[in-house]
Amino acid sequence: MAHIELGVDEREFPGISGLMRFRPETAGPLGALAEVLLRGPHPLSAGERELIAAYVSGLNECDFCCSSHSAFAAAQLDEGMTLVEQVRADLDTAPVSDKLRALLRIAGVVRGDARQVSQDLVEAARKEGASDLEIHDTVLIAAAFCMFNRYVDGLGTLAPEGTEGYAASARRIVESGYLS
Amino acid sequence: MAHIELGVDEREFPGISGLMRFRPETAGPLGALAEVLLRGPHPLSAGERELIAAYVSGLNECDFCCSSHSAFAAAQLDEGMTLVEQVRADLDTAPVSDKLRALLRIAGVVRGDARQVSQDLVEAARKEGASDLEIHDTVLIAAAFCMFNRYVDGLGTLAPEGTEGYAASARRIVESGYLS
Repeated sequence: MAHIELGVDEREFPGISGLMRFRPETAGPLGALAEVLLRGPHPLSAGERELIAAYVSGLNECDFCCSSHSAFAAAQLDEGMTLVEQVRADLDTAPVSDKLRALLRIAGVVRGDARQVSQDLVEAARKEGASDLEIHDTVLIAAAFCMFNRYVDGLGTLAPEGTEGYAASARRIVESGYLS
Repeated sequence: MAHIELGVDEREFPGISGLMRFRPETAGPLGALAEVLLRGPHPLSAGERELIAAYVSGLNECDFCCSSHSAFAAAQLDEGMTLVEQVRADLDTAPVSDKLRALLRIAGVVRGDARQVSQDLVEAARKEGASDLEIHDTVLIAAAFCMFNRYVDGLGTLAPEGTEGYAASARRIVESGYLS
């Protein structure tokens, strides 16, 4: 049960969805940020960007966000949930492009102590073809999920068991996005 | 020097200001979030909310954000920079209200492992008069600065020395806010 009275049934509105109904004034900018970062026009596919979000949320052990964005990534990647699980289990051997692997490495460092992102780490991504925009957005996606994860867990919201609810959310997100 | 080419002189646009010029599509929601959280209508004063931002940024050792929001808090608190420094040095003895102290304690836990925010910690704030909105916004301010701090540091942006530049920014923020 959430630490505050959200005014909704948490089983119907788990995780961040109850919080966004509690405080629509902050839900607006939060949804807009997610929409630009994860679904806006971009050299990285929506599936690849959701994979960065799922990877960071997994490292932060945020069950709700990790389950949600794993489902959202799986729904938009040809390789589906198998690839999401491979990345989360072992980034070094997961069958992703070398560019995405280098970007995920940056995301992992941002999640911990972002001051440790070195010029070498950035150069390694650039060598695999990453642009300044891709590096910027990888850092901001990782940073943003350090916010979303803390928001959801700091207020003690519900993370439903199972995969059905997350798969249903994935269908809604793929169809309608984060603004609705 | 930032890890990516921002297209601006970093001495003129240090920290997040250069990043926001590089990527206006994300700058919009980020500015809107800061405006609602730190300056919107609220039972906590703008100075108190900036103090939460400065406190979290200090714990994250993000020089640019800590210097900026310390200056923004000082400019809007009767006790000025003295109080900001007291809170950052020793929260237990700093001369803030017991409600604000309890909220700052929650913010500190959110910054580390947000899953450790206990019902007891929340009840302690409620006992001092904190409302659900104040608890919610404290958690989200702390979470948001875990994002802003990582964004600024993960991209290696410049944090100017001294206090003059931050004091000038404080005058602009107090007058015009985060949307301009």
